[in-house]
This record gives sequence, structure tokens and C-alpha cells, in this order.
Amino acid sequence: MAEQTKFVLSEKDMPTAWYNINPDMPVNPAETAWNAVLHPGTKEPVTPDFLSVLFPMRFIGEAMSLDRWIEIPEEVQDVYKLWRPSPLYRARRLEKALDTPAHIYYKYEGVSPVGSHKPNTAVAQAFYAKEEGVTGFTTETGAGQWGSALSMACNFFDLECHVYMVKVSYQQKPYRRVLMESFGASVTPSPSDKTQYGQSILANDPDNLGSLGIAISEAVEAAATSNGKYKYSLGSVLGPVLMHQTIVGLEALKQFEMAGEYPDIIVGCIGGGSNFGGFAFPFLHQNFTAGKKTRVLAAEPMACPTLTKGLYTFDYGDTAAMAPIVKMHTLGHTFVPPGIHAGGLRYHGMAPHICALYDHGDIEAVALHQVPTFEAAIQFAQAEGIIPAPETAHAIKATIDEALKCKESGEAKVIAFNLSGHGHFDLGAYDAYLKKELEDYEYPDEAVQEAMTHLPEVTLG
Amino acid sequence: MAEQTKFVLSEKDMPTAWYNINPDMPVNPAETAWNAVLHPGTKEPVTPDFLSVLFPMRFIGEAMSLDRWIEIPEEVQDVYKLWRPSPLYRARRLEKALDTPAHIYYKYEGVSPVGSHKPNTAVAQAFYAKEEGVTGFTTETGAGQWGSALSMACNFFDLECHVYMVKVSYQQKPYRRVLMESFGASVTPSPSDKTQYGQSILANDPDNLGSLGIAISEAVEAAATSNGKYKYSLGSVLGPVLMHQTIVGLEALKQFEMAGEYPDIIVGCIGGGSNFGGFAFPFLHQNFTAGKKTRVLAAEPMACPTLTKGLYTFDYGDTAAMAPIVKMHTLGHTFVPPGIHAGGLRYHGMAPHICALYDHGDIEAVALHQVPTFEAAIQFAQAEGIIPAPETAHAIKATIDEALKCKESGEAKVIAFNLSGHGHFDLGAYDAYLKKELEDYEYPDEAVQEAMTHLPEVTLG
Repeated sequence: MAEQTKFVLSEKDMPTAWYNINPDMPVNPAETAWNAVLHPGTKEPVTPDFLSVLFPMRFIGEAMSLDRWIEIPEEVQDVYKLWRPSPLYRARRLEKALDTPAHIYYKYEGVSPVGSHKPNTAVAQAFYAKEEGVTGFTTETGAGQWGSALSMACNFFDLECHVYMVKVSYQQKPYRRVLMESFGASVTPSPSDKTQYGQSILANDPDNLGSLGIAISEAVEAAATSNGKYKYSLGSVLGPVLMHQTIVGLEALKQFEMAGEYPDIIVGCIGGGSNFGGFAFPFLHQNFTAGKKTRVLAAEPMACPTLTKGLYTFDYGDTAAMAPIVKMHTLGHTFVPPGIHAGGLRYHGMAPHICALYDHGDIEAVALHQVPTFEAAIQFAQAEGIIPAPETAHAIKATIDEALKCKESGEAKVIAFNLSGHGHFDLGAYDAYLKKELEDYEYPDEAVQEAMTHLPEVTLG
Repeated sequence: MAEQTKFVLSEKDMPTAWYNINPDMPVNPAETAWNAVLHPGTKEPVTPDFLSVLFPMRFIGEAMSLDRWIEIPEEVQDVYKLWRPSPLYRARRLEKALDTPAHIYYKYEGVSPVGSHKPNTAVAQAFYAKEEGVTGFTTETGAGQWGSALSMACNFFDLECHVYMVKVSYQQKPYRRVLMESFGASVTPSPSDKTQYGQSILANDPDNLGSLGIAISEAVEAAATSNGKYKYSLGSVLGPVLMHQTIVGLEALKQFEMAGEYPDIIVGCIGGGSNFGGFAFPFLHQNFTAGKKTRVLAAEPMACPTLTKGLYTFDYGDTAAMAPIVKMHTLGHTFVPPGIHAGGLRYHGMAPHICALYDHGDIEAVALHQVPTFEAAIQFAQAEGIIPAPETAHAIKATIDEALKCKESGEAKVIAFNLSGHGHFDLGAYDAYLKKELEDYEYPDEAVQEAMTHLPEVTLG
């Protein structure tokens, strides 16, 4: 009724610095920064020189920084304002549908032009590349969520963007490809004949439909062999990527002040960790430094249960064992998760920061099945109007479960989740759900056991 | 830089009444209200009894009302707040790309959960139907923009929603169908065997792929023969529909106050007239009553140039000559426009209010070709990030043309257009444009001449 539905900040209230969790990590920051990143060949810590071939220097510096607050460059803020600050909603209709005393909030990142949180880091990375005078970026994309964010960001800074898109998605999901091309990006189905690695794959298997691992390897090779013309951009996992996303949680903190409440539980879906980290870290900062006791809950798919079932050890970042080795929760880099529709959550590993925090008990995790997750997504859409991305639906399912526990206990807890993206490009998955064509996958125990036999042998000095 | 990019109203500043242009029309209001609506059989003015079979009484009352302000029911405001107030943007990056002294603004209606302005009336109509205790609505949809809006609205008010979707779209564009189904609607490919009219079509032509005209006739028949169980809902053309959309222009007026500017030119794309009317009427009200002299410009496709080339006369509202007859600009109800990608603008007629205002000289119109319109859309997307719906792209093309005239003349005019919807569900059209598969159609002179021979013979007493 007259009660407020959404909490909207004006542009002048947009945070002007990101929160860098490095100095507040419960472990030696070295364990999660670059010096815990090992070269896939030598298995020795990588050097800044090695990294600078791939990443802009400012990005590398952010990974090493122990400054708690890192100013958002004005050029980046300027682009953010095309859609930021994003709204925080009170999900009153969902509360009513669930008949729960809980107060449910969601931060809506689907308002960005490409419909997800991904531009928060894409814009920063593109600015850093522009600043260094490079020609453009290479990157990989699965269904296209990350690729479309980076394409838009490169377009704003007059950079080229060369996207290696997993071939099966390129063929079956043309819409995000068109979005990338509309922003002027070139999109190459991977494996391709543009890289040595792609050529080697095609030589053995001309009909190979690709994988994210192959696409990463192609994009990395294309940047590494460009004599500095191109840098490589990654949309999750790395510390600076998570840090760029903290604007989400920082805005939410201000919006909860407007709402006059503070969350008891913070929920995010988790694949590589960027939307979760970006939403949760500012609340963890309050836990660490301001005596708050918010529960922080990560929701992952049962088909790829990295945190809840993975081993906390050193593993390659990619499937092809060409990317650096990091310490993280992993299901084994050779593990191929079942083809669930939340493609963004099908990663064998996890952001090292998140893993360290989970290992330390600062974060909880829950693994969810696909079918009840879509069921929760439909319930949410019918209550609130917004069709969420299948990835985001995991956060919704976990939120609804917590809200129903409140109904049992009669507690009016405040629960907030990150609605990291809308599902406009994922309606094929909803079609399959509505036609009852989806199935749940049990935790793939044997496949993971097998994958664990391929972990790299690492002996740190 | 520090200059403001968007102007955001808080919920408490959302307008609480719609603007009803009836009392300010430059013609006898009777000419645009129901008493100028003729029965397609008798060709006599329709009675409220006839209309009440199809429409909720409150809706019929709005059409007849001479009250300038009609309060938005609290239940409707409550749903509006899921996405309203919508933002007004200053398109600084587009201005820079065009190197124009003009100030370009756009009101962004793509923030609604279904991505267009359509829910502004769908929600009101659904509330009126609920209030009357009916079971649900029938309606037609082409590509699905209107159908998805009404599906969402019905879902919020626990009404059934039965959508007759043009069969070729049902088969080729499944995504908006899935969106409708996610909101619990039933979607029937039209022509269907559910209605007598559909059966008669299929009997002659079992492979008929449908048309909007056929779908309208099926939806109307389904409501008219339901013994009051269902009402019929139309998403454009009618007076109350345009009035429900005036919240767009009323919000924009407040936002221009925040911006400290006032538009010299208002632009909207035009098919049936609802997004255009909703944006423009509040500014026309200022022209009529407050001495403002804003130019109001409608942008229509050259392939279906209803205002610029149509005859201002009595014609059927639908292709099948089963819908009422109204006085409007028309290309002839049997005219079949070329298959351009802006499906929402392929209507032979036009809202009677808009026609009367155009005839009186209060509104200007321009007809635009498809290919340069997509070119403008891409230029806008690359500048501002948002991919517009192909319909909306006509408003953008007209705006850019005006901004370039300002560049010639050196005038810093303020130009504002209604970004009525995003193009997430229209990327197939962008794909065709980027592949250079689209062509322009000349004004179909002969086809219109032929269609004009089928106008109904009307002799008003």
C-alpha cells in the first residue's frame, strides 16, 4: 500500500570507492593475491611480468593492494551512471505469497543495459586497458552474459573486443551474439582456427562444439601472442573482479539505511564468485569491523557443488590446464558438470577469496537442485514480475527456503539476495522447465572422484 | 562528468492521477469517445450495453469522462511501483557522438518487467476486471509484447489470461510465449479451433499462419460468447488506454523540472498510438493551457504511414471487419503492410484522439525507412548501452534527425523521446540488419489505393 516498495539512491549517493577485502581477510592476504597464483608450467608463483602480458597494470596492482578503499575512477563512475545506482526492492508480494513474517529484499542488477551485474567489472577493466593504450581485449564467453558486458564496455572506451564464444552456444543461442555484435564486438565460435590451440583441437576433432575451457585458452593465447596489442579480460574469480562488484553491496548498505532495517541473512548465487562477493563483502566488512552478525549464504547448483563438495586445494583455473594454478575449492579441473541451464554456475573452481572465507567459517553454502530452483524462480516471477536468470534463481530458492524457516519459527528475519541478472535471454530454459523436460542431477560423486586424480602436484617452498 | 545523467523520482513523487485529454480536445469530444464508435454490422453508434459485453464498466466510463484528472486506483499504483517511476535520461553520450548542441533526453519505459510501456494500461485494465468479479481476460498478441504485459497484470490480480497469438509468431518467436506462460497465461496459436471464426478460417485454409486481425476477432469472440466470464482487453488505440499511458508524460514533466529544462520537441514512435499519446498528451496539455509551444512529433514507418499518407475517415478497427468502425487516419482495413520488423507499428489505423489532434495541427508526423531506423538504433545502443525495440527505433531516428538539424543551425534545442521498450526479444531483427538482409519499402501506394476501395459506407445522421 503506502509502504515503500523500492529504495532508490540518487547519482550523487553512488559510492565512489570499492571495498577491497584484502586487508580484512582472515588468512594471510598473500594466499589469495597473485603470489598464491602459480604458473601452470613451472608451478612457481607467477611474476607481475608474466601477468602484465595478460592484464592491465592497474588491475594487477589492485590484486596486490592492501588499501581497504580504492577510488572508482571518474570515467568508470560516469559509465556506471548509465544504470547505477541500482534499486533495492522489498519483495512484499513474495512475502505475502509465502505468508512469511520475514522481510525479503533484493538488489536488482538486471537494470544494466546487458541485464546483469557483469558490467561493473567490465567497465573498470576496459578503462584500465584504454588508459594503458592497448588496442582492445580478448575474452571468452559461454552463453554470452560476460561477453556482452565486455563488448558494451569496450565500445564505450573505443576498444576492440574479440570474444571467443563456445561454439554450441554460438550456434544455439544467437541472441547474445547479436547483442555483442551490436556493440561492435567480433564474435568467433570456439574452437576456431584463429589460435594454435584452436587449430590443434580442430585437427583432432573438426566437429568439436567447444567448452568454456577451450574458449579461455584461445582468448588467453590470442592476447599473449599479440605483442601487447590486446589484453585478456576475465569476468569472475580474480580479486579485482570481485572488488569491482562491491559497489553492489555498498549501495545496498546505504539502501538498508533508507529502509531502516539491516539484513540478518545475505544470499547470492555462486559460480566463479563475482556477484556473490560483490554483494556479500561489504556486509562481511560490517561483520568484521562493526559487530554485525549477518549470515552470509552462497547458493550453488547440486550439479556443480564446488564449495559444499569440492576439495580446498591447488588446481588449474581452466579445463585445459593452461591457466594459472590457484588454491581454491575445486571439483577437479577435468570435471565436466552436467548440462544444467545455469551455465554461469558450471565452473569447477571458485574465487580464492570466497574459498578462504568459506574455509574460515565466514560464509555458509548450500547446494540446490535444478527443478525446485526453477520452481522458485517462477514463484518469484509471479509475485514480483521479474523473470530471473537461471543462475540467480539459486539465490531465490535459498532465500525462499530461509523465509519458510521463518514462517515455521515465527521470526521476522530480514533476508536480502542479489538478483544478479534477468532471464530475458534464458527463456528457452524456462520453456524446458514448463514443459517438464528438466531433471535434477545428483551430486556427481564418481565423476568428481575421477577428476580429483588429475589435480596438479604442487609443493610450495 | 559530474553532470547528472538520469533523473529519478522517488515513489512518493509518482503521479496519482492520469491526464484525460477529452476535455482539452480541439474537436467535439464526442468525435473521439464511444459515441463515435460504430457497430460493424449496423454502422450505428454502439451502445454502452454492447460495449459492456467486452469491456469493464470503469473502462467504458473513462472513455466517456470529461474529467481532466482521473485518480489512479491505489491497487494500480501499488503494482506500478514495481518499476515506476521510470527514469528520465540525458543522452550525453549520444549528444557527443552526434556533436550536436541539442540536449537529448529519453524516458525509459523498458524498465518494466516485460520491457515496455504496455503494463501501464494492462495493470489498470486487469484491476477493473477484478473489481467487476470476472474470471479473466481474452486478448490477442502479435510478437507478444502486449500479451506478456497483460499476462503479468492478470497474474497480479489472480485473473485468467487467454492470449490468441498470431500463429507464425507463436512458432517462430517462442520467447515471449514462454514469458506469458511463466506468468500463468494460456497462449493459443491463432487461427485456432477454439472459436467459430478460427474454425471457419481453418476450414478453408488449414495451414493459415494467422494475422493480428484474425487474432483480434478470435479474442473478441471468445469474450463475447463467454456469458460475462471473460472481458476483452485491447492494448492500444482506445482513449482509456492512451490515458493510462499518460503517467509516462506526467512523470517526465516532473523530471524536466529536476533537470531545469523544458522540451522544445517531444518525439514518440506511433503504431496504435498508446506510447506516443501517453508521453505527448501531458506536454500538449501544457501547450493548450500553459502557453508552452513544444513541437510534438510522431514517427511512423514508411511501410505503414498511417498519419502521413492515410485518409481521415471511418474504417473498421480490424482486418476482418468484425471490430467497431471509428473515424481515424487509415490505410484501409484490408491493407497488409510489408513485413517490417517493427511489428507493433504495422496497424492500418490509429487512435482516434491522435488522428483528431493531427488533423487539427497539434501534432506533426514523419515517416521513416526501416534500414536507417536500425542504423539509428545501433548508434543509440553504442552511445547509451540500451538496445531499443525496433518500434522505438523510429523515435530515435526522428530524434537524431532533429538533433542533426540543430547541429546545422547551431540551436541548443531540448529534444525528448519515449524509449518505449528494449529490444531484448527483437535481436533476430538486429541480426538481420547487421547481416544486411533488411530492405526499405517504398510507400505502398497501389496497395493502399486498393484497400481504400473497401472502406465501409457510413452515413452519419
